Amino acid sequence: MRSFVAPLGEIRFILRELLDVDRELSGLPAYRGLGADTCEQVIGAAARYAEDVVAPLNARGDREGCVLEAGEVRTPHGYAAAYRAFVEQGWPALACRAEDGGQALPSLLNNVLYEFLNATCPAWSMYPALAHGAYHTLRHYGSEALRRLYLPKLVSGEWTATMCLTEPQSGSDLGTVRCRAEAAGDGTWRLGGAKLFISGGDHDLAENIVHLVLARLPGAPAGSRGVSLFVVPKFIPDAAGRPGVRNAVSVTGIEHKMGICGSATCAMQFDGAVGWLVGAPHCGLSNAFVMMNAARLGVGVQAVGIAEAASQAAIAYARQRRQGRAANIATEAAPIIAHAEVRRMLLTQKAWVEGGRMLAYWLGLQLDVEAHHEDPHARQRAEDLVALLTPVAKAFLTDNASACANLAIQVHGGYGYMVETGVEQLVRDARIMQIYEGSNGIQAIDLLGRKVIADDGRRLRVFLDLIAAWLASPGGQTAPAPMRQRLGSLAADVEVLSRVLSARAASDPHLVGAVATDYLRIIGHLAFAYLFARSAATCAARAVAGDPFFQARHVVAAFYFNRLLPEADACLAAIRACDGDFAVRDDAILFS
Amino acid sequence: MRSFVAPLGEIRFILRELLDVDRELSGLPAYRGLGADTCEQVIGAAARYAEDVVAPLNARGDREGCVLEAGEVRTPHGYAAAYRAFVEQGWPALACRAEDGGQALPSLLNNVLYEFLNATCPAWSMYPALAHGAYHTLRHYGSEALRRLYLPKLVSGEWTATMCLTEPQSGSDLGTVRCRAEAAGDGTWRLGGAKLFISGGDHDLAENIVHLVLARLPGAPAGSRGVSLFVVPKFIPDAAGRPGVRNAVSVTGIEHKMGICGSATCAMQFDGAVGWLVGAPHCGLSNAFVMMNAARLGVGVQAVGIAEAASQAAIAYARQRRQGRAANIATEAAPIIAHAEVRRMLLTQKAWVEGGRMLAYWLGLQLDVEAHHEDPHARQRAEDLVALLTPVAKAFLTDNASACANLAIQVHGGYGYMVETGVEQLVRDARIMQIYEGSNGIQAIDLLGRKVIADDGRRLRVFLDLIAAWLASPGGQTAPAPMRQRLGSLAADVEVLSRVLSARAASDPHLVGAVATDYLRIIGHLAFAYLFARSAATCAARAVAGDPFFQARHVVAAFYFNRLLPEADACLAAIRACDGDFAVRDDAILFS
Repeated sequence: MRSFVAPLGEIRFILRELLDVDRELSGLPAYRGLGADTCEQVIGAAARYAEDVVAPLNARGDREGCVLEAGEVRTPHGYAAAYRAFVEQGWPALACRAEDGGQALPSLLNNVLYEFLNATCPAWSMYPALAHGAYHTLRHYGSEALRRLYLPKLVSGEWTATMCLTEPQSGSDLGTVRCRAEAAGDGTWRLGGAKLFISGGDHDLAENIVHLVLARLPGAPAGSRGVSLFVVPKFIPDAAGRPGVRNAVSVTGIEHKMGICGSATCAMQFDGAVGWLVGAPHCGLSNAFVMMNAARLGVGVQAVGIAEAASQAAIAYARQRRQGRAANIATEAAPIIAHAEVRRMLLTQKAWVEGGRMLAYWLGLQLDVEAHHEDPHARQRAEDLVALLTPVAKAFLTDNASACANLAIQVHGGYGYMVETGVEQLVRDARIMQIYEGSNGIQAIDLLGRKVIADDGRRLRVFLDLIAAWLASPGGQTAPAPMRQRLGSLAADVEVLSRVLSARAASDPHLVGAVATDYLRIIGHLAFAYLFARSAATCAARAVAGDPFFQARHVVAAFYFNRLLPEADACLAAIRACDGDFAVRDDAILFS
Repeated sequence: MRSFVAPLGEIRFILRELLDVDRELSGLPAYRGLGADTCEQVIGAAARYAEDVVAPLNARGDREGCVLEAGEVRTPHGYAAAYRAFVEQGWPALACRAEDGGQALPSLLNNVLYEFLNATCPAWSMYPALAHGAYHTLRHYGSEALRRLYLPKLVSGEWTATMCLTEPQSGSDLGTVRCRAEAAGDGTWRLGGAKLFISGGDHDLAENIVHLVLARLPGAPAGSRGVSLFVVPKFIPDAAGRPGVRNAVSVTGIEHKMGICGSATCAMQFDGAVGWLVGAPHCGLSNAFVMMNAARLGVGVQAVGIAEAASQAAIAYARQRRQGRAANIATEAAPIIAHAEVRRMLLTQKAWVEGGRMLAYWLGLQLDVEAHHEDPHARQRAEDLVALLTPVAKAFLTDNASACANLAIQVHGGYGYMVETGVEQLVRDARIMQIYEGSNGIQAIDLLGRKVIADDGRRLRVFLDLIAAWLASPGGQTAPAPMRQRLGSLAADVEVLSRVLSARAASDPHLVGAVATDYLRIIGHLAFAYLFARSAATCAARAVAGDPFFQARHVVAAFYFNRLLPEADACLAAIRACDGDFAVRDDAILFS
């Protein structure tokens, strides 16, 4: 069975050296005085919690799954106890505001925490994870009364939350939601209808569950501009804020899934459940996007965690398994880590993990800048980068994570296909990340259609300017010349391509859908090329001086540039060659 | 739940028009008089058998799995009855020689049969599939007595077979096999030792199981030149050829796997089991390669079947599921097949399936030519193509099949992650195909190291000459010019690349392992580009004339060239950029 050790050295490198959080965070009033040392203490404690408490839940929870009995969900053995420890240690409060009872630490640190939780048990991690989006949504849009009642409970972790968005007929297009809400006359609402695929819709970890529910008011406009957001607690809080009367929301079934079997995915029924409106009527969808955007970046972080776990499992096995004669080892059976083909797989994983981690942390830092910087221009710039790259982090990192998990199986050979080895669970658990919180195709269309074309390239310009400025900076000059060149030429290609696509999209309504996925892969590579070039620049002097840690970083960066980045050119060629013919043909003929 | 309909129209096109089997087969004395009509009758019957008898086994067998009770394996409900029908209908005999009781039909047809079986239930298909390799091995290397005894039983399907090769310490490198065989003095041998991951090692489908076992004689040389092959029946046949005394071979456990759960993967123990030597002592490994090569091409066929099933499931769902407004449909919620991003996924599947089918059938035809052509040069040419492209068919087609299965999930969105939908099983079942019968990394090393470099490019030359000759032929001239150009330039790139790699490999022992996987993808694309160009040439006139079937083939071919083939350039770039640094670094530093 695999075991996980948090990669503290690599994280320390990214935080201290690559991102220079000491300087970056101390530039934000909210975190003045907070340095890398404090960050590392928190990260060390998070690592111990994940390794000791969460990791043991993973394989067993996969076997046991959840059970629905008499309308209540029972989670796998150990889940509830681990959650109690999570609450006792204060982890839910980590990045919440002090005025809500939070610890007011950077959301960057929360990302690191969730990376570890997902490296050790993605299914369990779903239960606490959803509270963060609900916290931010209620904090932004909830009334004073709702905030006073719910925020402290979410911050302490006493209560968890769900996002009740999807319905059987309403998935990618939430404008078709049918759940209804009628005014009760006392300021509350009565909700009716069915929701599907609700993660943590019920469980036995916490005393109450706060459902955030999309529904329509009577006479609401059709489509996405007629959807409102409600808070519907499992137990209606009494005057003292304690869970009171059971609300009319019930679980009608739990799904039997490919993976994350310990996470209860619920079909929910609302039968006149009491709810409170969050934000203005009919603005539910855009308000819910506060949750969704946080969740999307969160999925990117999950992907880094599971990819790291896959990488560690593969390396450990490749060290121990002996098979075949290696080119430079005399004995009959060498550890397979000596074989170049195995190293290719291990380094592919390493590069996806390191690139993903750099991107997720860098974006996490931008989130903190966006929320706390004194300079409105700096805030705007950070907001632009987050908006542009959130779909990239969600889709690029999860596609890569599934590739990493599959490589873990491949390195294990036949043993990897056996349940006991534990790596096939990584593939099954990782697979949902490419689907939920907006499938990766939806992310790609969001990126190209909304974030680039509809924005007239403004946000993309911010990113390209950042890259150009770095390349011209003293730091950029220390990056190896081939990497600098490659990064610069890819940025130039992206600029031209984006302009061409914007022009073509005006007359071809199918174009965005036809090329978006390839476009997202290209932007993902542009971000990775930028970050790996920065990493190589940061490492250069010490790698030359012979420090093994920095040499390793350099080899990974070079491997990324040499072996993985060429995919971007294939995607460019595919987009250029795309004639759109396939999009307009009669499907009865094409797919007969 | 998904249902499967054999794609008889596309198969008919490949057999009749693309491969012109009427002419090709009638050129072989063994099949004189056999035309496409007969082939299609057989294929039609195979389709009905798979659709009606095998398809219902798939989901249930996945849930039930196999059970080991008192040393005997019980297969899932319905498996044994389906196998009885398989035997009664004479399917095991399809491509076996008439003198052994076979139907003497082309192995090409056997491929089509197994494509259907794997499209409907890969786990069940494992039980009959392994008999074919055993049949060929015994026919080539077995003594007269062994052949008289075993071949009719394998041909009728009364008995099944296994390949007992792998041991716990001996997977990719079978030269490290430890099982022992000692002479009993009466011409038989006594085998001792343990085998692992033995598909169909025991089951309740047939009255006897013929194990083909690799073991070492006393004093045998170390390594791969000291391994011998034995036949070890579960029940020792009596004088009349009926299963007699139980042999000392037992199942010590069955594996709990990610997929193909209905296929019993057994740990076996030989405790002085009675065996008979097959072929000369110490030549077991090369003799077993007769089985393995047949099995490797067979895995490519499996991959086509499961990819076709994935494609059909995705298309059916995309027609029925309504979500989102489409560019050219006025209603609120269009069938998702109208979205270009969904079509991109569906056409990617279509292209992988059609390309894979063309390659598998074309190679199947080459096998028949190799076995039956009167002209030794034609036989040699076919043998060269089969040897070169068998690892490609195994690895390229199985990697693509896993991609197709994953796309089926992606098209289904959240529903695809639910067990009931049936497509996540495709991913789990397909995953083993990239591993067994030699992992895809092993295939890549076999291709580049043995089939190309060690062969000094001779077989590759045969393939490149074939492409050049076709391009210069009247048929080649009718292919669209961009496809002809692209095929020609890729062939030229492959020629130069192969020469460069041969030269570099002489001084760099890590090179083959470092680049083999990328190289195999390139050769796979070269084969697909050749076959899709031929397909487009064959379709051209009728596509222009407006025949929908041929228009669809043209769109798929164009999609392949425009959108998927660019991967070959990325692989070329990756190989050119590969500096090998990663292969020689101290692993303790690199993977710390």
